[in-house]
Amino acid sequence: MTVTIELSTIGRVRLTETEGVGEIELHGQFTDGLEGVEELEHLWVLYWMHELGPEDRQILRAHPMGDRDRPRRGVFALHSPMRPNPIGMTRVKLLARRGNWLVVEGLDARDGSPVLDIKSG
Amino acid sequence: MTVTIELSTIGRVRLTETEGVGEIELHGQFTDGLEGVEELEHLWVLYWMHELGPEDRQILRAHPMGDRDRPRRGVFALHSPMRPNPIGMTRVKLLARRGNWLVVEGLDARDGSPVLDIKSG
Repeated sequence: MTVTIELSTIGRVRLTETEGVGEIELHGQFTDGLEGVEELEHLWVLYWMHELGPEDRQILRAHPMGDRDRPRRGVFALHSPMRPNPIGMTRVKLLARRGNWLVVEGLDARDGSPVLDIKSG
Repeated sequence: MTVTIELSTIGRVRLTETEGVGEIELHGQFTDGLEGVEELEHLWVLYWMHELGPEDRQILRAHPMGDRDRPRRGVFALHSPMRPNPIGMTRVKLLARRGNWLVVEGLDARDGSPVLDIKSG
């Protein structure tokens, strides 16, 4: 049986004009959770793919890399954004930290994506 | 501002008597999402650390590896299970698939943990 779980977003992604460079602004109440993060080179960022609608979350088979010439496969055998719980997961390089702001390289999220978690990577 | 997001669990972890080997039972309605998964060697499993209580989700600084001799650090600079959204993330080796059941090696979840997502790894 499916159980519903509630998450609270901890921050938000802001893309910059420099390709591949993004910023993560944590909501102020979570700033203490970043203590010591500046010592790390890489982080995992979990974020919510907020542009997907309820109908995208029903899709269980998709073309690999969106390529219609390749046969459909189960979404759990892919990295497709289509999936019942559209949680994105990217390993990024930490470029800078200022208080509750992180500047990172390699974040493949969309601008405005809610951030769910950050872990040492 | 913190926004609440609702997830639906897609399955559950069952640990076996063999150390390091676990099973994932997907809820039946998600079985199509596993099509082709047997061709993969590794998968990422995202699961919910269900044994943590609401008070654990308030903790923003923790001792690395739970070692009290090491100074506390922000949870986003650690792999600590304590964090606002206790999502566990493990890369596992796929040993077998039978329908909606996966047998995997290296899953560091607790028995009964709800599974949130599976991605090619």
